[in-house]
Amino acid sequence: MSLLVAVTWETQPWVERFTRHLPDRDIVVLGEDFDRDAVRYVATWGPKPGSLSGLPNLEAIFSLGAGVDHLMSYPDLPDVPIVRVAQDDLTHRMSEYMVLHCLMYLREQRRFDEDQKAKRWNPDRAPPIAGDVRVGIMGFGVLGQDAARKLKVMGFDVAGWSRMPKSVEGFEVYAGDEGLAPFLGRTDILIALMPLTPETKGILNRSLFGKLARDGRLGGPVLINAGRGKLQVESDILACLDDGTLMAATLDVFETEPLPENSPLWTHPRVTITPHNSATSEPEATARYIAQQIRRHEAGEAFENVVDRKRGY
Amino acid sequence: MSLLVAVTWETQPWVERFTRHLPDRDIVVLGEDFDRDAVRYVATWGPKPGSLSGLPNLEAIFSLGAGVDHLMSYPDLPDVPIVRVAQDDLTHRMSEYMVLHCLMYLREQRRFDEDQKAKRWNPDRAPPIAGDVRVGIMGFGVLGQDAARKLKVMGFDVAGWSRMPKSVEGFEVYAGDEGLAPFLGRTDILIALMPLTPETKGILNRSLFGKLARDGRLGGPVLINAGRGKLQVESDILACLDDGTLMAATLDVFETEPLPENSPLWTHPRVTITPHNSATSEPEATARYIAQQIRRHEAGEAFENVVDRKRGY
Repeated sequence: MSLLVAVTWETQPWVERFTRHLPDRDIVVLGEDFDRDAVRYVATWGPKPGSLSGLPNLEAIFSLGAGVDHLMSYPDLPDVPIVRVAQDDLTHRMSEYMVLHCLMYLREQRRFDEDQKAKRWNPDRAPPIAGDVRVGIMGFGVLGQDAARKLKVMGFDVAGWSRMPKSVEGFEVYAGDEGLAPFLGRTDILIALMPLTPETKGILNRSLFGKLARDGRLGGPVLINAGRGKLQVESDILACLDDGTLMAATLDVFETEPLPENSPLWTHPRVTITPHNSATSEPEATARYIAQQIRRHEAGEAFENVVDRKRGY
Repeated sequence: MSLLVAVTWETQPWVERFTRHLPDRDIVVLGEDFDRDAVRYVATWGPKPGSLSGLPNLEAIFSLGAGVDHLMSYPDLPDVPIVRVAQDDLTHRMSEYMVLHCLMYLREQRRFDEDQKAKRWNPDRAPPIAGDVRVGIMGFGVLGQDAARKLKVMGFDVAGWSRMPKSVEGFEVYAGDEGLAPFLGRTDILIALMPLTPETKGILNRSLFGKLARDGRLGGPVLINAGRGKLQVESDILACLDDGTLMAATLDVFETEPLPENSPLWTHPRVTITPHNSATSEPEATARYIAQQIRRHEAGEAFENVVDRKRGY
């Protein structure tokens, strides 16, 4: 009974961690000889076409990250449960990222950076306090809710939006198409954490940005996208930054990754770029989580965080 | 019965706010004619010598900020209670500042800024998670404890140090001279929030920096000082940054303010400078707090946050 590792990243750290956490299994990798009949589990990120075929005894596919769009678009995806890795480590990292970037806007850190560069001592313009700034989180699942709780502790006025109605203690959650405009209308900083599905592709566009609050304390709406790059229309982001529809954007994900060198986003003065690492799947914690799920399954319990294929996440 | 406003800042915003919150009092200012016998209260920041004398019916002095060192060094300070402004707004702003700057170090935001400038896409070096980083807060009063609680929610491993032993639920608090070395030895990011007293003047020096943890995940110790500038020896900070005793520093306060244009701190690549506004006393909230204290006092209750003159804070 073996586990196949099929990732676009460097394989070795993953093999090491799985070997440690599943010492009684063979850990095999694509490109080497292995017994395809023995493979019960696949741990994968961005599998190449064909790499998941011909595994007659496969019982589950583990997606090594919070999103599963890389699998949903895979042709001939085996008909076994797809389990999302939803481990605390990844959740905490994402919340660190969100709190950091919301605070950078709140406390005008970019202005102070400019002042320092110019040796300018200018203490007089006091930034607003967190309670004066409304953060809206699109995609109110495990990641969105953890970020919401931490942003609220910092004092921000936080609400969520999700496709389906849901009730989360302590937060107003807007839902569906009819909830979107009122949600955007009370939002100064928009955080995008939705899954990428046919419905959400390109949703971060001019029409949506135009509905964000314009009466906020930051001087204009801010976008933070650490969900998926294909949620956003980058030409709209650039145009909206230039005509004032958006004041600033922090982007961890992009339509094409790595972000091409000729993208104007790199040098835009009001864009902050990070290289899709807001919340990386750290091999150690991920392997521990997957080993735990395998033991649950083999003890007759259900997998946790199984993807709904129809919904797409 | 009037209140005298004696500040080094622009007077008008303060007079306006006090007039609103104390509509039954005369609000008077230095430099204008007023009845000195009628003055019951002074609200002050950095009073000029002599400005607090000849007020025979004075009942209390309100210090418009968290620190009172500006009063402790005032000659002939009237023998009335000195009340520190400890309002939530100021506390929350200070915590925003501390969480922001700890997260900037944790998430290596300066490195990503450099990468963006160079159009470099480098997602591979995953920063540590907050739980791997030890924050130590020197000065564990109202401000320090609020920052501690919020940093802990973000996942940081937080401890405090105070001059006198104290017990704060959820935190290890080191105390006094014998607690200092063990406290520093477990600290990756040192936050300074102590009051400025003869004992703490210049305490942030090479000898102290040399006791900070050297086995941490950030690559070296970090100093964040938003207490008082005279806590620090700036020549030691610069020398310690250059020989690796410190990795980086974020400074909101300085030996001389405004920071002189010829200070090498302005341009040091591992120094972040903000202009003493980590937690400014916002007139509205401050005036509200002082009006509340005056009403308490006149109803026969004790003032809150009265300074211990012997201790100096």
